[in-house]
Amino acid sequence: MKTARLHKYNESLQLDEVDLPKPKGEGVTIRVGAAGVCHSDIHFMHGEWKDTLRVKLPITVGHETAGYVEEVGDSVQGLAKGDVVAVFGGWGCGICEFCKGGDEQLCISPKWPGLSEYDGGYAEYMHVPTYRFLVKAKGLDPKHVAPLTDAGLTPYRAVKKVRHLLNPNSFTLVFGVGGLGCYAIQYLKLLSPTSVISVVRNEAKARLAKEMGSDYIINSREEDVKSSLKKITGDHRVDVVLDMVSSKETLDTGIASLRKKGTLVLVGLMGNSFDLPIFRSVVNEYSVIASLWGNYNELGEVIGLYRTGRLKTPVSQFKLSEVGKAIENLEAGKIQGRAILVP
Amino acid sequence: MKTARLHKYNESLQLDEVDLPKPKGEGVTIRVGAAGVCHSDIHFMHGEWKDTLRVKLPITVGHETAGYVEEVGDSVQGLAKGDVVAVFGGWGCGICEFCKGGDEQLCISPKWPGLSEYDGGYAEYMHVPTYRFLVKAKGLDPKHVAPLTDAGLTPYRAVKKVRHLLNPNSFTLVFGVGGLGCYAIQYLKLLSPTSVISVVRNEAKARLAKEMGSDYIINSREEDVKSSLKKITGDHRVDVVLDMVSSKETLDTGIASLRKKGTLVLVGLMGNSFDLPIFRSVVNEYSVIASLWGNYNELGEVIGLYRTGRLKTPVSQFKLSEVGKAIENLEAGKIQGRAILVP
Amino acid sequence: MKTARLHKYNESLQLDEVDLPKPKGEGVTIRVGAAGVCHSDIHFMHGEWKDTLRVKLPITVGHETAGYVEEVGDSVQGLAKGDVVAVFGGWGCGICEFCKGGDEQLCISPKWPGLSEYDGGYAEYMHVPTYRFLVKAKGLDPKHVAPLTDAGLTPYRAVKKVRHLLNPNSFTLVFGVGGLGCYAIQYLKLLSPTSVISVVRNEAKARLAKEMGSDYIINSREEDVKSSLKKITGDHRVDVVLDMVSSKETLDTGIASLRKKGTLVLVGLMGNSFDLPIFRSVVNEYSVIASLWGNYNELGEVIGLYRTGRLKTPVSQFKLSEVGKAIENLEAGKIQGRAILVP
Amino acid sequence: MKTARLHKYNESLQLDEVDLPKPKGEGVTIRVGAAGVCHSDIHFMHGEWKDTLRVKLPITVGHETAGYVEEVGDSVQGLAKGDVVAVFGGWGCGICEFCKGGDEQLCISPKWPGLSEYDGGYAEYMHVPTYRFLVKAKGLDPKHVAPLTDAGLTPYRAVKKVRHLLNPNSFTLVFGVGGLGCYAIQYLKLLSPTSVISVVRNEAKARLAKEMGSDYIINSREEDVKSSLKKITGDHRVDVVLDMVSSKETLDTGIASLRKKGTLVLVGLMGNSFDLPIFRSVVNEYSVIASLWGNYNELGEVIGLYRTGRLKTPVSQFKLSEVGKAIENLEAGKIQGRAILVP
Repeated sequence: MKTARLHKYNESLQLDEVDLPKPKGEGVTIRVGAAGVCHSDIHFMHGEWKDTLRVKLPITVGHETAGYVEEVGDSVQGLAKGDVVAVFGGWGCGICEFCKGGDEQLCISPKWPGLSEYDGGYAEYMHVPTYRFLVKAKGLDPKHVAPLTDAGLTPYRAVKKVRHLLNPNSFTLVFGVGGLGCYAIQYLKLLSPTSVISVVRNEAKARLAKEMGSDYIINSREEDVKSSLKKITGDHRVDVVLDMVSSKETLDTGIASLRKKGTLVLVGLMGNSFDLPIFRSVVNEYSVIASLWGNYNELGEVIGLYRTGRLKTPVSQFKLSEVGKAIENLEAGKIQGRAILVP
Repeated sequence: MKTARLHKYNESLQLDEVDLPKPKGEGVTIRVGAAGVCHSDIHFMHGEWKDTLRVKLPITVGHETAGYVEEVGDSVQGLAKGDVVAVFGGWGCGICEFCKGGDEQLCISPKWPGLSEYDGGYAEYMHVPTYRFLVKAKGLDPKHVAPLTDAGLTPYRAVKKVRHLLNPNSFTLVFGVGGLGCYAIQYLKLLSPTSVISVVRNEAKARLAKEMGSDYIINSREEDVKSSLKKITGDHRVDVVLDMVSSKETLDTGIASLRKKGTLVLVGLMGNSFDLPIFRSVVNEYSVIASLWGNYNELGEVIGLYRTGRLKTPVSQFKLSEVGKAIENLEAGKIQGRAILVP
Repeated sequence: MKTARLHKYNESLQLDEVDLPKPKGEGVTIRVGAAGVCHSDIHFMHGEWKDTLRVKLPITVGHETAGYVEEVGDSVQGLAKGDVVAVFGGWGCGICEFCKGGDEQLCISPKWPGLSEYDGGYAEYMHVPTYRFLVKAKGLDPKHVAPLTDAGLTPYRAVKKVRHLLNPNSFTLVFGVGGLGCYAIQYLKLLSPTSVISVVRNEAKARLAKEMGSDYIINSREEDVKSSLKKITGDHRVDVVLDMVSSKETLDTGIASLRKKGTLVLVGLMGNSFDLPIFRSVVNEYSVIASLWGNYNELGEVIGLYRTGRLKTPVSQFKLSEVGKAIENLEAGKIQGRAILVP
Repeated sequence: MKTARLHKYNESLQLDEVDLPKPKGEGVTIRVGAAGVCHSDIHFMHGEWKDTLRVKLPITVGHETAGYVEEVGDSVQGLAKGDVVAVFGGWGCGICEFCKGGDEQLCISPKWPGLSEYDGGYAEYMHVPTYRFLVKAKGLDPKHVAPLTDAGLTPYRAVKKVRHLLNPNSFTLVFGVGGLGCYAIQYLKLLSPTSVISVVRNEAKARLAKEMGSDYIINSREEDVKSSLKKITGDHRVDVVLDMVSSKETLDTGIASLRKKGTLVLVGLMGNSFDLPIFRSVVNEYSVIASLWGNYNELGEVIGLYRTGRLKTPVSQFKLSEVGKAIENLEAGKIQGRAILVP
């Protein structure tokens, strides 16, 4: 079968022909329907994750995968050839406190496919070590399901962490209307009655934010964000900031815009660090909380939401052999929605 | 000024002419814009609340009031003549643990207007002892704001108690599509991605439930509720039951339909008691929680939601002098939406 | 190896000699150090669970087991022969929403050993299908660890469900100072600053409750429970009821003693059902919540607490061959603490 | 009556003779039993709070007061001359979202006595505008109650924010064993089963931490904090950090010691800001939350805990006329426990 593999950090992926492993026990072979191309993949290919996850090279990249069951091991239950499935990517050990508590993506010894020693989804087929990492997606199109496993899942978890804080009088500020931010805006509107303010950097993103349901849009290239926020929220200020970028600039603006008891959620990974003011945080009881990917049940909920027809899942389709072009376009900021590879 | 007062339990209200008290200190006189007519008023007029609240007769009935500030005491802050306000009805002592914790409607010595020793809103004017019981509703029509103070508030609190349980795969079962149930359905859809199933007893209610956004409707006069539920939810069953009726029948059906870890919320007051099965509750970790009215901040949120234009507030309008007719129609189940009295 | 097996409901257990299965894959063979004898075992032996769990007979009874690793399958990680382990008993499928959410004991297709089609711990050895059901208990004595897996675990989960409600001014009422109640009292005192009131039925239980740390003790054979409660709590009433019995009588008294916003936790299984008063529950916003066993992480926490030396774990020791006598004594209410079988 | 007033920032307090105001309406005059001397008072006297709270000079300093009811206004309920009371200091407007939600200390227009335009407790008598700011402390000694209103209250709220995270296997790291830290350690042990690690800077503080119940003590002048933590917690790391200091140094060490999903609570105000690492925070889902003072109900709980006899409240007593000496000693770090002024 064909795969797109990384042989050396900072080099292009190579299209290789490798053998397809036969699933044993709880293992399952998936015929890939689509694999999402994520900024994390680019970070990974530059070697930025090598201290966080144990990596073996060469490796098939890709942690956003959906497809069809091709073959199952003899202990697999509830799945048959042809079933549409999403591959939950936050593989864990299954026994540490975090796995046992339902947050496998926070496992103390993570085994994320496409980002560690396990091959991912930039391939015709993918091997999954246990059916317990698969979520059924009967009747759905893998092309739209694949991005849900990360781009769609990550903001879902972030929004679930704050939705109890959101009421009809609240304002939520979203930084970053890219692959993840598009979902963040939609979840805020579908899961809560909050007003959403999106900060974008160009007209195309402004249109996209509007299409996703953002109530207010601030173009940071044309407006002063703080005075625009003041016009929109008055003295109320912002209840929650969802920062899908996390640059020094967005975080400073985020903290500065918070209402008393406000919460800032770190999701993006752009910046290295940011300066949290102590007196102001204490006097106002601010919270800064971080959110990582999502867990298995949350993926099931995201797929359930997509099934209702209320979730928009914009994708830009490439062939597996065009993986280089897809990555190039993503790096250049030219992708609308999520780039996916279709073998 | 004119008021509709109860002089004796189980007798008709009397239209009286009384003096208008002058507000002192934190007190405020409200020119009533509208007063909602609630089933609780009827229970009260039959003497059913006399062991719960300290009542003095005669009393002006009505605990769902909105109107205009007419006159303010010398310690009142932030209000001026003509301001539109909603009267929060769950008056408390202000110092017990429940008042101090933000749930004045749960005060250990409640002073609910129109239901205890304090006059309510079935009148041209109403005296409110402190401006801290008023919620601003600038620019809104008191006719639509009045019902929000109870019919709109009570299901809001109930839904807030469970919305963390509601995800795109969940089912919520609503019993009772009357004054409160109409709001319950809307809140479920506006605050969460759950699917809503409403149980009604006639075609008119079925249409109303649909209009409010219910995803599924079961007419209990024409269908077997349990088998219809089975068809809709399959093996998933129901995550949450919101019982706006709380009769023996609805509660039995509600408990019988719950999924593992399911929650039943008691809101209605029709039945006396119901039989909770112990083994089934424990093995499935059921929760039965009750919800009472709403607090001051929740009323502010409901009014904020109405302001967004996303909340439907159906009312049937009567003159104050027609109070007898309004009550009669309510008892006969002939009111569409909420009956309101407009002086 | 020797086992005590149930061949037919309502008959005595039979001491059988069976082959010891060899563990494969993730499987582990445990040399039993001790097995707790639980009231649930008696219910099970009377056939009361046959509609809840799929049972095959004959079966080795016992769901409270601790011991030593004897042999491991080739996929087992982190365990070696001789390691002391507790067997988590709430075996689940590992993929349903409840398993994935961390509450395997609430699995939709439970596989509890000793209570379904899987053999339990009344034996010299026990087969556990995956090391993911074992909690390490290095350096601890299996005789004291075994009861922690149910008698110690169940009240721990129940207390965790309410501890956020417990403050220094609160009162918690505990019904039942038996195998579970002893732990409930201790957890309330170790995890919260609440005052604990225990209701007992004789002097021996009163002494035991005192020893476990109960602040107040009411002997229901000698005092009127309601007036004693009134004397202890005054107008404050009871914030939380932990009912380890759940008879009609205890539940009625429990509900009648609750403070506004009070919570009653169903843990025991004695009664069939109880009558929840609707008006009183709504006006006071009561909650009735049920708690089932405990999950894997909670078992780890209980064992951690035992390790600190702050938890008393009273046991009455029997030989495996004395299983009949142990059960007889338990049924007769003659066991102090927890009965355990030691092969 | 005598008071100690600030006439100009950065000058010594002046002992003045002023008239005692007569209480009206809900107002109450308190005969001061004791007033705590807090680091915040020193910050305030240096003018550091003038942008946060509206200040009028001269002002009687002191926000930690307990004493006896001397005289009540005609609308005061439930209090009589001689009653022992604690003065809740987080005075608010009573109508903003935060006041109405039960967190008056987070009011959008705070009116903290001794720190704004309202006179505080460094005096023989103190005027309190409403009895709703008084907590009854019948039978208790104001000398020990006064420090509870801030030194005792602030860490209580902080601990309540995290106690659901604390289990028998968890470690909590406390920085700062001064006026507040002494209480923090005690609350952690009384409200949860966590192990507590305190970081101190000298032998006297080490002894104090031990006396308060700290399980482990690290003397940062003699040990490398990080390697000592490693020895104590192994790979588990620290679940919660309570930083009563909040210097750049403590915060860096705190963040560096956190376990996955760990929480750092900001309570102290020493530093200006600190650098939060983004990648590490996201990958581990860290939370940084701030906690401010405490609310009225929490003060009632703290007083309830003191009443049980389980809370140590070390104080160093000064006469009101010795206020200068008390402040000097506090600045020099020479106070054991809390300094109090007794008129």
